Amino acid sequence: MVSPTLTRPRGDRTRQAILEEALQLATVVGLHGLTIGTLATRMEISKSGLFAHFGSKEALQQAVIETGVAHFMARVIRPALLLPSGVATVRALFDGWIHWSSEEMAGGCLFITAAVEFDDRPGAVRDQLVELHHQWLEVVGGAAVRARASGAFRADLDEAQFAHDFHAILLGFNQARRLVNDPDAKTKAERAFQRLLRDASVSSP
Amino acid sequence: MVSPTLTRPRGDRTRQAILEEALQLATVVGLHGLTIGTLATRMEISKSGLFAHFGSKEALQQAVIETGVAHFMARVIRPALLLPSGVATVRALFDGWIHWSSEEMAGGCLFITAAVEFDDRPGAVRDQLVELHHQWLEVVGGAAVRARASGAFRADLDEAQFAHDFHAILLGFNQARRLVNDPDAKTKAERAFQRLLRDASVSSP
Repeated sequence: MVSPTLTRPRGDRTRQAILEEALQLATVVGLHGLTIGTLATRMEISKSGLFAHFGSKEALQQAVIETGVAHFMARVIRPALLLPSGVATVRALFDGWIHWSSEEMAGGCLFITAAVEFDDRPGAVRDQLVELHHQWLEVVGGAAVRARASGAFRADLDEAQFAHDFHAILLGFNQARRLVNDPDAKTKAERAFQRLLRDASVSSP
Repeated sequence: MVSPTLTRPRGDRTRQAILEEALQLATVVGLHGLTIGTLATRMEISKSGLFAHFGSKEALQQAVIETGVAHFMARVIRPALLLPSGVATVRALFDGWIHWSSEEMAGGCLFITAAVEFDDRPGAVRDQLVELHHQWLEVVGGAAVRARASGAFRADLDEAQFAHDFHAILLGFNQARRLVNDPDAKTKAERAFQRLLRDASVSSP
């Protein structure tokens, strides 16, 4: 059996290795702090070589976001969507996000960092982040709709509000963990999530 | 009557004017993006003149945070703490924060932007932000304790969890408003806050 990476052209493999390194670095220094110079030094390649792969800093930033999206799809979204019930999907999206942001990304969630960096910088990167934010809320809201259709969530549940509240819990977790190193960040997020589920669920008689 | 600002030495007034401009600018470009060069251009003073006021970029960043804190104390915290009940204080902290971050700061909440910028940068600025974060959660938690003592909030309410959840709602609002320009950001935050209050309150018979 041939490993899929070995079947790729050499240039693609180099590009992919650069992007994996850049993704981890960007979670720490931000997309804006990610310079072609720093990245070239870390990868031990020339700046001109690195520039040849991406052409511009904005193209590098966009490619890093795409790399983050590919990770996030593979680790969080796809496994969660395979689950048989909406409630199970909601639970898996929550657990998957917490694990992804705290165990797989060196400096926490790339998208949260990037959102703060780019909320005042109009352009292609900001547009990409806005689109991703909508897609993410739609995935969460879609799972809530399935849970509502199955009778697990109450009939009058507003899925957009549910997705908004779900996402705010993740933002709270990320800040408690990243800024304050709160050892209870995970427990607090879990309790907030339980409260959200309780409120969304059809009350037991 | 003499205005308090007129009694200040001229150097202090200049310093204060620089800091007010720097505060608004920092909410847009971040504390890290706030360079002495950009600020000097905007204030139409020389870089060396500006440097003389602060001495280093880190000292400028710290002074900008202190300026933000002074605003926040005057506009949000002090008025809320004057209210007679814990529940009224919680409500005023919520409304005050939403107004402050969306109407008084050009680029949203300074502290949220700074938290993401500095969570991976150890040093005096990060320490200051961590301390402020703790103080803020203590103010919110303290109001919840008063509401519990008065019988408005349930006896087993965990005030640290309450403060964490309260803060997460604000993070959700800030991102919905700043990144996505969600026209319903305020309504969604208000609904999340109502849900938090409902869960904290002693249920009506």
